Amino acid sequence: MKGMSPALLRALHDVLGPTGCITGDGVSDKYASDWSKSSWQRPLALLRPASTEQLSRTLALCHAAGQPVVVQGGLTGLGGGASPRPREVALNLERMNRIIEVDPVGMTITTESGATLEAVQQAAREHRLQFPLDFGSRGSCTIGGNLSTNAGGNSVIRHGVARQLALGLEVVLADGTVISSLNRLVKNSSGYDTKQLFIGSEGTLGVISRAVLRAVPAQSQRGTLLASAADFDGVLRCLDLARRQLAGSLSAFEVMWPAYVERVLREQPTLTGLGQLARGFWILIETESDSADETVALQGLYEQALESRALQDALLAQSLREAEDFWKLRDGVGALLAAWPHPATFDIGLPIASMPAFCAAVAARVEARYPGLAMLPFGHLGDGTLHLLFDAPSTAAELELVELVLQPVGDFGGAISSEHGIGVLKRNYLGLSRNPAEIELMRRFKQMLDPRGILNSGRVLTD
Amino acid sequence: MKGMSPALLRALHDVLGPTGCITGDGVSDKYASDWSKSSWQRPLALLRPASTEQLSRTLALCHAAGQPVVVQGGLTGLGGGASPRPREVALNLERMNRIIEVDPVGMTITTESGATLEAVQQAAREHRLQFPLDFGSRGSCTIGGNLSTNAGGNSVIRHGVARQLALGLEVVLADGTVISSLNRLVKNSSGYDTKQLFIGSEGTLGVISRAVLRAVPAQSQRGTLLASAADFDGVLRCLDLARRQLAGSLSAFEVMWPAYVERVLREQPTLTGLGQLARGFWILIETESDSADETVALQGLYEQALESRALQDALLAQSLREAEDFWKLRDGVGALLAAWPHPATFDIGLPIASMPAFCAAVAARVEARYPGLAMLPFGHLGDGTLHLLFDAPSTAAELELVELVLQPVGDFGGAISSEHGIGVLKRNYLGLSRNPAEIELMRRFKQMLDPRGILNSGRVLTD
Repeated sequence: MKGMSPALLRALHDVLGPTGCITGDGVSDKYASDWSKSSWQRPLALLRPASTEQLSRTLALCHAAGQPVVVQGGLTGLGGGASPRPREVALNLERMNRIIEVDPVGMTITTESGATLEAVQQAAREHRLQFPLDFGSRGSCTIGGNLSTNAGGNSVIRHGVARQLALGLEVVLADGTVISSLNRLVKNSSGYDTKQLFIGSEGTLGVISRAVLRAVPAQSQRGTLLASAADFDGVLRCLDLARRQLAGSLSAFEVMWPAYVERVLREQPTLTGLGQLARGFWILIETESDSADETVALQGLYEQALESRALQDALLAQSLREAEDFWKLRDGVGALLAAWPHPATFDIGLPIASMPAFCAAVAARVEARYPGLAMLPFGHLGDGTLHLLFDAPSTAAELELVELVLQPVGDFGGAISSEHGIGVLKRNYLGLSRNPAEIELMRRFKQMLDPRGILNSGRVLTD
Repeated sequence: MKGMSPALLRALHDVLGPTGCITGDGVSDKYASDWSKSSWQRPLALLRPASTEQLSRTLALCHAAGQPVVVQGGLTGLGGGASPRPREVALNLERMNRIIEVDPVGMTITTESGATLEAVQQAAREHRLQFPLDFGSRGSCTIGGNLSTNAGGNSVIRHGVARQLALGLEVVLADGTVISSLNRLVKNSSGYDTKQLFIGSEGTLGVISRAVLRAVPAQSQRGTLLASAADFDGVLRCLDLARRQLAGSLSAFEVMWPAYVERVLREQPTLTGLGQLARGFWILIETESDSADETVALQGLYEQALESRALQDALLAQSLREAEDFWKLRDGVGALLAAWPHPATFDIGLPIASMPAFCAAVAARVEARYPGLAMLPFGHLGDGTLHLLFDAPSTAAELELVELVLQPVGDFGGAISSEHGIGVLKRNYLGLSRNPAEIELMRRFKQMLDPRGILNSGRVLTD
């Protein structure tokens, strides 16, 4: 255990027991890297508290010893934030995965932070509710990770980001202090809303241990349309129509650039039934409600968009099976990420109208350095997220792509991350999206809440 | 100018000029109290910066001199937070009222914080947008005040509270440091979202000088239903029906208790056409969209609610004029507040199902102390706010009512404020809604951001 105090290890073992404190070869490879695969480092020890009390005592011990800690949820992040760095122990919340209570009248779900997103969605369904946060990694990612990165996903356009779904939080500070703010009310103006600072700060200010989440009534009716626009202007006009005509029921507006569509269709031959749709920018539109026949509204949108030439073609899902196939096209990104050895992924926030110009600028930069390397753009267009995906030839290329893609973000008034967070991979570029006064204020918060700098050190902010 | 340094006053005068720095009888009475009328105190000086730069220099001077400052927007608050306390100068943002830009594609409004809510709503309308925050004081209250208290209002059920409508903020700290985070993107996970801490902290941590607000597409179709339920159980069943059937278009669900209805009908004889509706709990339901005929969906809800006996009677507005009359009933509270010398108002956050038991508990406490004093309950039921209104016989009674009403809040899992904020009037009761660890953390933030304690001192937290 080079670099770790034997006394600390003994004390942690006393608190956590043999299943909660694991060292050496007992630590499985899965704790050595997140989905970015940008580094691989086994932690000095794997700490798996089973309760808030154990978590608090664990952090108090590490704080006293100045032992650096990396906080881990489902390790599905793409910023390298949960990947251990040298000398770190890993604090993994996977044993704190209990759904504590579902309140069907107040429409809240109280859960430990290690519960997977899918488990929370399932608990909601059992009470005729819906927890609307959703994305492809739902089976592995945890609520704590979702809140720490202020995750977005497929239905932000209707239900908002993770922040908007969190009513209350329990957080353990670096020194072990437990701050329990398990508010269950939709509105509360009784004092500072301190929990907000922990949402989206990627575990650098405290460890989220519990959350009270806001659910919505289950939406039994769903309509799904896969449409094709000849150009980006058609996409924009279709978005405007959808926002105005579908208003409260519009739950997803996903756009896939032609290069992305070609690549995923090639990888997933079972989806070739979709090949009949005219090529171009493909748009996946979903609406949901508990009452109306959603296909009627989508049919109306489709006809009007064809007539005004915003769209050139469209398919309305006639069954759940067809709708699932449409989504497989969009979720096809997961298979690519898993298969590629050095995936480079981005989640740029941009004013929607600047997306084509930004894509062109980045494509030129990438082509100059890596001729022929395909760039696959897609995104949650309704909320301004542009994803870019590359099959990088090496780890070095993966890191260089970060530079090539992020450098122009500032010129377009964009955000270097709109979903995945900064982690380690993007920390050197934070100044492209935030000014020096903002970064100085962030450092002051970090200094106040984690004076010894043990928590996720080197993530978001440089050391 | 007892208590104020002549050197400081001269320096402030140099920065702000004669219209920006006013003393003595030049300070109008309106700056001496907010709408709670709980205290009356002329400030040592009235400071009216016209720009962020002037604001920054003003605060830097006050910080250096240790001069306490009360921050004022439209003074429509009900917590006494903007009312000057002895030895304070008033910093009023009314000259910083410029709407800087409306972006119809990105659907954002960038504004100085002293703009009134109504001015922002109007700017949105001019671009076929809607700024959905709304309440009775719209003509006087300012965006800065709305954000500082994280205001709620009539359409929270659909569009969320002020926090959810703020994409970016510019804040000036107590020492004059300007933190500009004028983000315009719907999603941004690039570093800590520090602006969140300033929203809802009632000007105690910094002064909001600008904001980027999120607008929504203008909703041209509106449906308004005034319904009557015989008992609270009927109200709850009607709410459940409305949430499920009206889903994305439901924009208001306001409930008025029988005592409230009687009182407002008596005060507003022109509304007597409404007197034909069966007495009981009156419910005002509003839906909005840009496309559908909203009266059809409301008609469906109404028929089903009558059939299931959730409702006993209802009126569907047949014209804009009728809809306005329904709202006059709800907004009638404004006239009462203005007419009464010692209005005592409350904005309790409660789990909806506990509202009747809470009302009964409070009514018993009030009756024991002030026999015959009427309690008028109403509220934004859809988001858990219960308003209580009393025509207190004196300032002392007003303060005593705070104690009588708030003391039981903790027992019901409630929040002592869900909309108006804590201000001065409720600060001694913060411990009923927040635990000691939370309050200690709040104090640490206050100490870090305002080490000399000059900003809105004694609001939210006790001195």
